[in-house]
Amino acid sequence: MNKLSVLFYLLVAISFNIYAEEDKATYINENRYEVKEIKPVQFSETPKNIILFIGDGMGISHLTAAYTANGGNLYMQYLRHIGLITTHSANNYVTDSAAGGSAIATGQKVTDGTVALDQDGIAIPTILQISDQHGKATGLVATSSITHATPASFIAHQPSRNMKEEIAEDFLKTDIDIFIGGGLQHFTQREDGRDLTEDLKEKGYSVFTCLDEATELTSGPAAIFTAPRHNSIYHERGDMLPRATKKAIQVLSQNENGFFMMIEGSQIDWGGHNNDTGYIIGEMLDMDRAVGVALEFAAKNGETLVIVTSDHETGGMALHGGDYEKGSVTAGYTSGNHTGSMVPVMAFGPGAEEFIGIYDNTDLFYKMINLFGF
Amino acid sequence: MNKLSVLFYLLVAISFNIYAEEDKATYINENRYEVKEIKPVQFSETPKNIILFIGDGMGISHLTAAYTANGGNLYMQYLRHIGLITTHSANNYVTDSAAGGSAIATGQKVTDGTVALDQDGIAIPTILQISDQHGKATGLVATSSITHATPASFIAHQPSRNMKEEIAEDFLKTDIDIFIGGGLQHFTQREDGRDLTEDLKEKGYSVFTCLDEATELTSGPAAIFTAPRHNSIYHERGDMLPRATKKAIQVLSQNENGFFMMIEGSQIDWGGHNNDTGYIIGEMLDMDRAVGVALEFAAKNGETLVIVTSDHETGGMALHGGDYEKGSVTAGYTSGNHTGSMVPVMAFGPGAEEFIGIYDNTDLFYKMINLFGF
Repeated sequence: MNKLSVLFYLLVAISFNIYAEEDKATYINENRYEVKEIKPVQFSETPKNIILFIGDGMGISHLTAAYTANGGNLYMQYLRHIGLITTHSANNYVTDSAAGGSAIATGQKVTDGTVALDQDGIAIPTILQISDQHGKATGLVATSSITHATPASFIAHQPSRNMKEEIAEDFLKTDIDIFIGGGLQHFTQREDGRDLTEDLKEKGYSVFTCLDEATELTSGPAAIFTAPRHNSIYHERGDMLPRATKKAIQVLSQNENGFFMMIEGSQIDWGGHNNDTGYIIGEMLDMDRAVGVALEFAAKNGETLVIVTSDHETGGMALHGGDYEKGSVTAGYTSGNHTGSMVPVMAFGPGAEEFIGIYDNTDLFYKMINLFGF
Repeated sequence: MNKLSVLFYLLVAISFNIYAEEDKATYINENRYEVKEIKPVQFSETPKNIILFIGDGMGISHLTAAYTANGGNLYMQYLRHIGLITTHSANNYVTDSAAGGSAIATGQKVTDGTVALDQDGIAIPTILQISDQHGKATGLVATSSITHATPASFIAHQPSRNMKEEIAEDFLKTDIDIFIGGGLQHFTQREDGRDLTEDLKEKGYSVFTCLDEATELTSGPAAIFTAPRHNSIYHERGDMLPRATKKAIQVLSQNENGFFMMIEGSQIDWGGHNNDTGYIIGEMLDMDRAVGVALEFAAKNGETLVIVTSDHETGGMALHGGDYEKGSVTAGYTSGNHTGSMVPVMAFGPGAEEFIGIYDNTDLFYKMINLFGF
């Protein structure tokens, strides 16, 4: 090759790269939805039920991007009591999702990568487990594998988030009433040869391998596996999260003593890691529609606190341009990893006013525990 | 030069550049201050006074950086009622400071670069001017020139923020009781040969060219010029902003009908434009100490609403590392310009609860006007 052709190929390579970057940086949302009016009844003094949403990797820019892409309308706007939380873990200023989830679930800072275990390796009871002990129904929903770091933090106790088979076993140790998400193979195709879905059935669980199978399901305990590993990206998996939210509420609200549920918009984080604006916005709007489902229930029910928060920011996302009418957003990113900026907490329902101000992610646990009166 | 020496110089240049970038990205704060306890008296139902702080360019990362650098303590934490505002201007998703300031000051979206003028070029009354008409005392404080975009938006009406001499003239058209900031030369060294400080004196103003001169000053009207153009950076100008805040409160609180004052932490934005973490943190902590002065007054007074907000984010700042004990922060940036992410609103005092939720920057005007009962 002569010098000119090297230059030519170099320029082609650079242009292609710039194009690819630009493509991931700008997104036009063609699928806007109407945000229906939420008219709450009079709230009780304290909540009987808590539905906690964790938008993994959701920072203020992710929220603004979704808000813009849906033309300045989100269900999350109904959560008017806003706080800002710090997210550092026991050993890092910038947390991972296991430590971030564990902080919210247990009220204690843990080391990155560990799941609800303290510095001495001792299991820390989670809000889900404590709720269960107090007679509340409990649930977990995620768009990742249900054994992934964030949902795991609410039910498992393991030295590493990567111990997916051990985390799957931990689902049998708490009487969780319903869980919905990917990760079937960590229960069925295991190194130890066990099929944990058989153990679940023995414990009385109905086990399903897709949401459609569970149409008739109205009471727990139930396990609904929506994928062998992680669920696919939003535009492939469709409305799994809002549907799972509805199904879980239907099952959990049978319990007279109320319920605690954590629902994770897991893949917002993956969009952030990829610096992919469309991925982020698709996953954000998907979680927002699930929040809409929760709000519809909470507004009628009057005894349900809905909280939306995040474990950390991902991507160092910033908004360089946008258009509310077109639903377009152009973003820049500083990182392919998590970052350390405060993330939002938004709350609706009885006790929502407790979630204002600047505080630490561990405080979320104590605020919820106090409101439940435990 | 042979190829080897070209390579050598190239490597030196690259290393130097990386070093310089790293230097601006990481900052260790050696000057922590104690955040004193603020014990508020019982608040009145509605505010008689409003002190509005605008941290120009302050996003959530700027706030988190300052919080970390001061060891997890800020006066701003006392402003527990938090909102998030959108910041787009009439013609751009990413606003400039003139349109951002005008939106807050007038309740209307204006075109970037214009100062409190609507799309037809007609002056829009500002919260400061309306407060003046209702018998309240008024004030402006800035660490930039007092004729700069943000303070100008509260008192001037001009088609361009660059018309500094015309903006200076506009200070004579409203009976503002005190203003403190740089920009003397736009009043005295003018193309039209006028010396506006003479006009100010004729209108009854005491005119000072530094804060030290004004020690005995207890009542307005007064103009205190702290620099010929902009004030210098924080570590050169010292505690000008907290002192100016104290002086302005001292003068304005003489008025029985109450007061409105806007105080700008102008140079947070310039730190953002420079992607200079130390500059941002120095200016953020300076504004926080000024907020502390305002809180000390508001806590005793009981009729004063303190609001801290921002006109837009600058720099696309994200936090890549930090240490609460060392007071260190490492940041990344996506841009040398403003960005479009929502920015925080934080409020303390009577009416603070009105500032929660997600809303537009223009709503701030209406919330303040309603609380004043105009």
